[in-house]
Amino acid sequence: MEASFLRDQWYVAATSAEIAAKPLARTICNENLVLFRRADGRIAVLEDRCPHRQAPLSLGEVVGDDIQCGYHGVRFRGDGACTLIPSQTDLPIPRNFSVRAYAAEEIHGLAFVWIGDAAKADRSLIPDWSANTSPDFTTVHGYHYVRANYMLLVDNLLDLTHLTYVHKATLAAGPSGHIWLKDQDVTVEGEAVHTSRTVRGAEPSGLIRATRRFVSGQVDRFQTSDFYPPCFVRVTLGAEAAGEADAMKGPHHVVLNAATPETEATTHYFWSVPRAYALGEEAVSEIFYGVTKAAFDEDAAMIEAQQRTMATDPNGGKLVNFRGDLASQAARRIMDRKLREQAMKASVAAE
Amino acid sequence: MEASFLRDQWYVAATSAEIAAKPLARTICNENLVLFRRADGRIAVLEDRCPHRQAPLSLGEVVGDDIQCGYHGVRFRGDGACTLIPSQTDLPIPRNFSVRAYAAEEIHGLAFVWIGDAAKADRSLIPDWSANTSPDFTTVHGYHYVRANYMLLVDNLLDLTHLTYVHKATLAAGPSGHIWLKDQDVTVEGEAVHTSRTVRGAEPSGLIRATRRFVSGQVDRFQTSDFYPPCFVRVTLGAEAAGEADAMKGPHHVVLNAATPETEATTHYFWSVPRAYALGEEAVSEIFYGVTKAAFDEDAAMIEAQQRTMATDPNGGKLVNFRGDLASQAARRIMDRKLREQAMKASVAAE
Amino acid sequence: MEASFLRDQWYVAATSAEIAAKPLARTICNENLVLFRRADGRIAVLEDRCPHRQAPLSLGEVVGDDIQCGYHGVRFRGDGACTLIPSQTDLPIPRNFSVRAYAAEEIHGLAFVWIGDAAKADRSLIPDWSANTSPDFTTVHGYHYVRANYMLLVDNLLDLTHLTYVHKATLAAGPSGHIWLKDQDVTVEGEAVHTSRTVRGAEPSGLIRATRRFVSGQVDRFQTSDFYPPCFVRVTLGAEAAGEADAMKGPHHVVLNAATPETEATTHYFWSVPRAYALGEEAVSEIFYGVTKAAFDEDAAMIEAQQRTMATDPNGGKLVNFRGDLASQAARRIMDRKLREQAMKASVAAE
Repeated sequence: MEASFLRDQWYVAATSAEIAAKPLARTICNENLVLFRRADGRIAVLEDRCPHRQAPLSLGEVVGDDIQCGYHGVRFRGDGACTLIPSQTDLPIPRNFSVRAYAAEEIHGLAFVWIGDAAKADRSLIPDWSANTSPDFTTVHGYHYVRANYMLLVDNLLDLTHLTYVHKATLAAGPSGHIWLKDQDVTVEGEAVHTSRTVRGAEPSGLIRATRRFVSGQVDRFQTSDFYPPCFVRVTLGAEAAGEADAMKGPHHVVLNAATPETEATTHYFWSVPRAYALGEEAVSEIFYGVTKAAFDEDAAMIEAQQRTMATDPNGGKLVNFRGDLASQAARRIMDRKLREQAMKASVAAE
Repeated sequence: MEASFLRDQWYVAATSAEIAAKPLARTICNENLVLFRRADGRIAVLEDRCPHRQAPLSLGEVVGDDIQCGYHGVRFRGDGACTLIPSQTDLPIPRNFSVRAYAAEEIHGLAFVWIGDAAKADRSLIPDWSANTSPDFTTVHGYHYVRANYMLLVDNLLDLTHLTYVHKATLAAGPSGHIWLKDQDVTVEGEAVHTSRTVRGAEPSGLIRATRRFVSGQVDRFQTSDFYPPCFVRVTLGAEAAGEADAMKGPHHVVLNAATPETEATTHYFWSVPRAYALGEEAVSEIFYGVTKAAFDEDAAMIEAQQRTMATDPNGGKLVNFRGDLASQAARRIMDRKLREQAMKASVAAE
Repeated sequence: MEASFLRDQWYVAATSAEIAAKPLARTICNENLVLFRRADGRIAVLEDRCPHRQAPLSLGEVVGDDIQCGYHGVRFRGDGACTLIPSQTDLPIPRNFSVRAYAAEEIHGLAFVWIGDAAKADRSLIPDWSANTSPDFTTVHGYHYVRANYMLLVDNLLDLTHLTYVHKATLAAGPSGHIWLKDQDVTVEGEAVHTSRTVRGAEPSGLIRATRRFVSGQVDRFQTSDFYPPCFVRVTLGAEAAGEADAMKGPHHVVLNAATPETEATTHYFWSVPRAYALGEEAVSEIFYGVTKAAFDEDAAMIEAQQRTMATDPNGGKLVNFRGDLASQAARRIMDRKLREQAMKASVAAE
């Protein structure tokens, strides 16, 4: 488990729907932020701390394009500049009296915030979560607050074997072939990790049965998981009646996961499930939301238990890797390397 | 924020009404106290710790003028001397087997306790809170437990500009002149800080409208705040129909505030509001209590948020001072000087 | 209060009834255990930590004689050996991939676990709690979770004077002779401490009145307490109509107490009350359970208050001993000596 976070990265801070009339407080990578929507509709992200008396700006209100502190009425623009000090309007605003501003982009139905040097923020580095808003998909959105380190959630999403044990009633298929991982494919491409497996002749999962109507018979399934630093995992799934797997060209549904660290030991887990069938059918959306919510409740319970167990391990919380952990092992190697590079740069900069 | 407390000082520990048949546990300046009322009616304050097996004496009961431990029946007088050890009544009480006793005075409807050297306790140093029990006033009393350092509460009471933002519905007047502080008056007199401002032609506040019946028209108002170390603030208020401010001779009501530190991060906030009009009118008392309670709920929420924000500030919780902070800046300077003097004396004594 | 625990000792970890189909998580002496019952009926105790990804095994399930991790299905035998890794069944189990196993014995209706070197576990060292399951007694069982160090509970059980103050309505007799301890008898025999006193002509306690039907008149009572390291106390009680104490040959009821440390500041308190009369009478059992439960609630409240007071004592939580503390003083001397010996052995072994 890392003691620090990767900086100069995009993190999901909120869904678009969360940023409404009232300012929203959220902690990301141990930094306290306030998100608000300006009169012109654009979002702004500031440090959630009025530099006057340290009141959180999130207790204030939005006035036009500015946020006004709820304690003494001091106002700040979205770029952090102070625009009003009510107790001394006859004096100029003091130099350097401003709030730290964060680069932020609203896209794919989400608010991404750049943790690090705002000057380096590059919109093109935002992961492609476009299925969320594509007309080719219908999407359900969810959020879990998880009391565990975000990498335990990444592990969970990259391992392909826990479904049988954790998600018996929701996502698991029958025992046939489900665990057999000799033929799984794990590849590293730059900083991304890709893993895939195809399961032939399996029982359909509860979710597939409920929404795809394979009333009887077995299915061929494929599952791929793609990891992108620092905390993004796209899971792509398809299923066809047994023997027709080769006909599967595209995904039947996708699970887009952003495991945003709040602190070392807590995670904001933003997830969405765009599906390529039954578009616009509300009843199917309800099933997708309900099953995914139930399954991620199961994951969260297990991951939080892992976190507690690791925290009390006299031997430091060591993890052992088996075949099912190949992808998460690759992801952790990439993260470890990037964190080491970051630490080296910081130590050079400090000299 | 100070890391320690000013000693050899009076602090409000309880209201008179709180000290009844059952012993009362209360922590003041990190010291655990038990307060009780003896058969003779006088209050006594001891360390809340039986020296036998460390049971808190506050779980025991008052027997005559003594307090009896609830675990094994050991009894102590109000001066801390042990009077009975039930398991060995045939033996003398061991020398030095006693509880620490605190100097305490009951006056102005409050129990004041002297934190420090009891031999130095001087009743004449108790602040003049006599309006509480004066026949010229009718008084309501209240208490808030505030999860913040007491000096943040002192700041709040000495600044004259937060009313507009924090107390919109209760104490604020309209915007006219309310924030304009060029004419405020801040003076330091010995260890006391006095600040006053007069606002002419303002909208009456909700409290004034509700109790003084200025049904229409504007008012002239004056507000003064007086700080006395370590944690006392008297706010005096008057209001007359606009143009008659010069006729205001005395207060219309007073807010007496004692922000007693429990720990560095929590405060026992004892407040009372003596008023000079509508004496004995229960309906007016209900308005005074209700509005003040609501307003101090608003303050407590803001101050607790400040405390949390300061606690997570990587830069140490620095405060910036504007014109509205002149009085609290003066108060903090006095407190800092007294705490430095105290630390110097302690270091000399230790040599 | 000791900073560490006595090792190579039996501790009560659970009642037999608690170890059923689902695995049971329990922390003993800061070690996280999982207890489960195998298909063959025997109990097994392992460290509650899957060495794969640190999920607690207690979230899994029992499969035959093994426990199966609830995250990825890895299985372990009662001796800690791994028997299945689902993601790589074609490969041998890695050497050294196993879970720590604890020696455990189920006897007297309880599960005893050996904390320390399993090779040294000796069933004959389990204290004689056999009244629990003897046909000569009818027994009620109870459990309290106490937020205090276990030695404060041992103190409580060895002191004979707190009944008058803590248990006014339940176990106390009238004031006559109850506190007079000049004639108490405290003896040390090896590592055990025995204390006894006989009270003649006392009011019967509420429990005696309710179950023995001394409707009127006084009684003679005897009480003995026996301490066995590390945390066992047997209290034996008898009562007869006044003047007949010499006729008391055996106990009328026994209170068997195991104050198992969970952490330095929390205790699993397993208690049982075998009685030698009214055998099998459910109504009498209900009285015994109800009165004991109520009395131990009173004890727990006092002991938890002691713990909190000691934790905030600037002078380190020192205890003073009076005549009522002779037995607990002897018990603490034995424990201190054994803990010192243990520390010495550990430091020799480390050289």
